Amino acid sequence: MKTTALIMAGGRGERFWPRSRKSLPKQFLSLTGDGRTMIQLTIERILPIVAMEDIFIATNRDYKALVKKQLPELPEENILCEPIGRNTAPCIGLGAVHIAHKYEDALMMVLPSDHLIKYNSMFVKVLKEACRIAEENMNLVTIGITPDYPETGYGYIKFNPSICKGQAFAVDRFVEKPSLEVAKEYLETEEYLWNSGMFVWKTSSILKNMELFMKDTYMGLQKIQTAIGTEEETQVLETEFAAFPSQSVDYGIMEKAESIYTIPGTFGWDDVGSWLAVERIRKTNELGNVVNGNVITINSKNCIIEGSKKLIAAVGLDDLIVVDSEDATLICEKRSAGDIKKVLENLKICNREEYI
Amino acid sequence: MKTTALIMAGGRGERFWPRSRKSLPKQFLSLTGDGRTMIQLTIERILPIVAMEDIFIATNRDYKALVKKQLPELPEENILCEPIGRNTAPCIGLGAVHIAHKYEDALMMVLPSDHLIKYNSMFVKVLKEACRIAEENMNLVTIGITPDYPETGYGYIKFNPSICKGQAFAVDRFVEKPSLEVAKEYLETEEYLWNSGMFVWKTSSILKNMELFMKDTYMGLQKIQTAIGTEEETQVLETEFAAFPSQSVDYGIMEKAESIYTIPGTFGWDDVGSWLAVERIRKTNELGNVVNGNVITINSKNCIIEGSKKLIAAVGLDDLIVVDSEDATLICEKRSAGDIKKVLENLKICNREEYI
Repeated sequence: MKTTALIMAGGRGERFWPRSRKSLPKQFLSLTGDGRTMIQLTIERILPIVAMEDIFIATNRDYKALVKKQLPELPEENILCEPIGRNTAPCIGLGAVHIAHKYEDALMMVLPSDHLIKYNSMFVKVLKEACRIAEENMNLVTIGITPDYPETGYGYIKFNPSICKGQAFAVDRFVEKPSLEVAKEYLETEEYLWNSGMFVWKTSSILKNMELFMKDTYMGLQKIQTAIGTEEETQVLETEFAAFPSQSVDYGIMEKAESIYTIPGTFGWDDVGSWLAVERIRKTNELGNVVNGNVITINSKNCIIEGSKKLIAAVGLDDLIVVDSEDATLICEKRSAGDIKKVLENLKICNREEYI
Repeated sequence: MKTTALIMAGGRGERFWPRSRKSLPKQFLSLTGDGRTMIQLTIERILPIVAMEDIFIATNRDYKALVKKQLPELPEENILCEPIGRNTAPCIGLGAVHIAHKYEDALMMVLPSDHLIKYNSMFVKVLKEACRIAEENMNLVTIGITPDYPETGYGYIKFNPSICKGQAFAVDRFVEKPSLEVAKEYLETEEYLWNSGMFVWKTSSILKNMELFMKDTYMGLQKIQTAIGTEEETQVLETEFAAFPSQSVDYGIMEKAESIYTIPGTFGWDDVGSWLAVERIRKTNELGNVVNGNVITINSKNCIIEGSKKLIAAVGLDDLIVVDSEDATLICEKRSAGDIKKVLENLKICNREEYI
């Protein structure tokens, strides 16, 4: 069976301001320091198991030009433009009907475009195993991440360690972001994984589940599939997509479906959730600084400094995030990284759209 | 007797980097937030007692164009260009011979171009009184500043409270920058003033003292005076000035001369020694921030933020100095303000002259 991939690249993340903008979200940024963007790295990572022509990118239509520019070898018809953001379920449905249109049935890996993975070959092995399991029956496979610490910012997957299929375990249930105490319990039981938002299934399996649990969306998706390649394609997509409820695949399908398996991954996954992640994904120097661009540091330590052309002189700083961009510079105490969104709120209130 | 002024504007201060540069020192910057530069404020302040045509500016020849631009009403011949920096004594000597050339003898106020004064009318009163005293005999008058706190960064003037002439006291001696303990003693005795580097005397008095205590410099100055207005003027200035020893007027004259008087000034003097001074000379907001330019602050306090066109977003900051310029941004903990010079040393070592 053909292996295909749907890369979800419609996010508008604000947490990498001022580098990320409405017009240039995180997946199109290079954050590793090697020049390649998150979406480029995502594609490179899976090329050992899927051909470029079988990779589909679901994104907001505003980003079509960016996808074309950053992935020039991708066939243009593989860029699926969402007329409006409707969370992951409609996005995955749109991918599924396009793949089904091309191959009738195929294996479909669903991957976010803005995460990093350290050990690619291990990741590819997990995906292969997931494909093997997803090919059987109507299995839905989700890639879980073995937690290192009691993170409270992710959802968790509870699996049943006594029911396994190859390297996968049967999933008991999906749980929302826990409190710290609950997260600590999860870590101790060793029966919980982080929900990474990576899935593998057949298009037939996911569409069948949509028919069961998201009937209206399914009906709309059928109309969209029928219109592919016709003159009405854009019009139908526009109309149907706008009518879909905004729903995550976790809530819409995974929490309700049968035959869900998870493979615990230990391939160095990182969702790169904020500028603080830069310390994890880049090398710090002997003073604990991560420095990039035109920067001079004097007696500064534990800082993340993303310079650009303009010279930044950092004197006597500690635990600071500094990010320069063409028209804006962020200077933020590490412990206030969560407040970067307040800058954007302020900019919105003041109608300073050029900075958003 | 004619009242004239010599404004010393040859300094190359590094402490206001990145706004101040070799090509744009502190006296040509606006630091008060009202748009007028330090030298412009200096001139405005004395216009009630001296005509524009009687104000002379001694500066490095590199800054002649800047002086012309910032003081368009000043006669061009009043800009005296030092071919090389030789500290204050030769600079004052050059001013004195130019004034003596124009008026034979005249009162000469010598003022730095990069200090601020809060109460201008009080300052003008002190200058008038200084002129009155300087007109008598060969009196040399220096304006002292009544200290508020035991500053260790300034020289002090010890006066004799029992010998006074009008509002002036006889000076016992000039003392170098003291230790903190010594500075505290000075403050307690109430017989010490800060040495502000502001003087009033007749050109005949200062030149006579130069003849007594700086004979070689005096001889050179005579040659310079003779050449004023001739074809050889530039050549003679070049040759003689380069041969002068680099010497302050304090060390070269004031510590040795007779009949020195000081007037204690309480007119809100500030030498604006570093970015930290901005807090004293500008209004802070309710969070203790001094903010200027295109800046957004979120949960930040006690910061000095000098923005420019580029947006600066300050998030969760405390006690930081941020200064943006066209090609460089300084971010500095307040307590490390003294280390700004290390940035310049680093730039020099790396031959990055464009930033110096």
